[in-house]
Amino acid sequence: MTFAQRLDRIRGLTEAHLGVLVGTKEKHLEGDAPPPQRLLDAIGHATLGGGKRFRPFLVVESAALFGLTEHQALDTAAAVECVHCYSLAHDDLPAMDNDATRRGLPTVWRAFDEWTAILAGDALLTLAFETLAKPTTHPDPSVRLELIAGLAKASGTAGMVGGQALDLEAERLPRKSPLSLDDILHLQSLKTGALIRFACDAGAILGRAAPEARDALRAYGTELGLAFQIADDLLDAEGDATTVGKAVSKDAAAGKATLVSHMGLQAARAELKRVEQAAIDALAPFGERAAALIEAARFVASRNR
Amino acid sequence: MTFAQRLDRIRGLTEAHLGVLVGTKEKHLEGDAPPPQRLLDAIGHATLGGGKRFRPFLVVESAALFGLTEHQALDTAAAVECVHCYSLAHDDLPAMDNDATRRGLPTVWRAFDEWTAILAGDALLTLAFETLAKPTTHPDPSVRLELIAGLAKASGTAGMVGGQALDLEAERLPRKSPLSLDDILHLQSLKTGALIRFACDAGAILGRAAPEARDALRAYGTELGLAFQIADDLLDAEGDATTVGKAVSKDAAAGKATLVSHMGLQAARAELKRVEQAAIDALAPFGERAAALIEAARFVASRNR
Repeated sequence: MTFAQRLDRIRGLTEAHLGVLVGTKEKHLEGDAPPPQRLLDAIGHATLGGGKRFRPFLVVESAALFGLTEHQALDTAAAVECVHCYSLAHDDLPAMDNDATRRGLPTVWRAFDEWTAILAGDALLTLAFETLAKPTTHPDPSVRLELIAGLAKASGTAGMVGGQALDLEAERLPRKSPLSLDDILHLQSLKTGALIRFACDAGAILGRAAPEARDALRAYGTELGLAFQIADDLLDAEGDATTVGKAVSKDAAAGKATLVSHMGLQAARAELKRVEQAAIDALAPFGERAAALIEAARFVASRNR
Repeated sequence: MTFAQRLDRIRGLTEAHLGVLVGTKEKHLEGDAPPPQRLLDAIGHATLGGGKRFRPFLVVESAALFGLTEHQALDTAAAVECVHCYSLAHDDLPAMDNDATRRGLPTVWRAFDEWTAILAGDALLTLAFETLAKPTTHPDPSVRLELIAGLAKASGTAGMVGGQALDLEAERLPRKSPLSLDDILHLQSLKTGALIRFACDAGAILGRAAPEARDALRAYGTELGLAFQIADDLLDAEGDATTVGKAVSKDAAAGKATLVSHMGLQAARAELKRVEQAAIDALAPFGERAAALIEAARFVASRNR
């Protein structure tokens, strides 16, 4: 199976599994009245029908290094994706990034309304932890707790939410000086890096990896998150370069300090190559078994080419 | 110790414990840069310096029935309060209930801004699950997982978030007919009942209660949640009655169907007495050891007197 086929297969499995998790089936079992259908529709809109499911891919492939089947990793993969989808539903709100479309569809608040988008995000974050607590996630309670603790840390003030706060603060609050390169690296390691790193770590937790193997996956996840962000910044800068004939990015137009604005295009491209290789090098302990994750690093880095 | 002293004592313990949980101390341990201070301030504003801490009281007193000390129940109590506080931070948003003050202070979005209030709420919900996953919550991993699963269910689409969605839908979306009494009971059992019921259940989970004892506490929690809501509706209706000299509630003025608008004041008062007694009766298996919880039911029901 090629990397693209593998990514697509896990995308399909994740999509189907999310459909069950966010559906109404389970809720009816106890004779309770069903939850409001409109809220469930909004949650469905936030989670289904789009996305590469890259974080679930990382969970499944990292777990596979330790002999877990796709299905044994699927609850965890879906929980990580729930957190990713909740963050998009909230980030798209008018009070946050004010985005009207995502993947060619109206964002949750545009398709429904603001309060429904807030509640759908809240419900998805809750569902992520509910899912990880279930015995189907892993038979060992300690493993499930380690996943819950790890996901919470990656998602909270020391992770994704903290990064989003730093990003919006930099954009909207008066500052003495623009963000330094270190500030940007820190912000991005929280905002996008923490969840990508956790997706890799989750495979190691599910697989009860030895400390060295777990460290290797975390190192891989850290470099991968950084590569993801540099590629994103380059895509923004070079996309415009092609269109308007000069290297002025949308971020730069918005006066936003990015890795590219600090380093310049050439140095950022070189840094991306270096980080891609560092990610691949981190996987050395796994040898050829890590082929899919190596491909994932190349995939992330090639988004700008 | 009187009930009021007991409530005040647990309020103080909860306040102190929340201060540690939402503080920055732990985050610095790993050498990471600290999370954004402004976000932490907003989280502090959302959690500290107010509130009866009634749900933590229920957790601590329910757990005490099974011999647990206050300190053994405090992580769980604080986690439940984090969920309550996150729900207030989000419900107060302009897109939701648009409230400017709470307990005499500006709401989170007024004291900071909307995006900070959204993120502070997200962080608090995450912190609740992070807290329950910690070994200090309970030494047995299975107990911690049961708490996490229970809190998630009480907070998500089948609980608090589902209830808030139903409430806003009833208020804002076109309907064929006004809410029936059953609709209102269902809405309120989700919106406020589920978390109050879980607070009582959490004590039973922490205490590894036998099934009958756990059922008794859940029954108590269900009646208590209902009493809480009837008292709230009566307070609203009779508060106005005193002021303007007739029984027109703010809810009624807003055209909102409530228990009182369906039943009338007299019948609602009688129902409150009945539910208060049902809550107390549910505690019969515990005899005199349940004195604090019996007082709590009287306290809730007397809020309208």
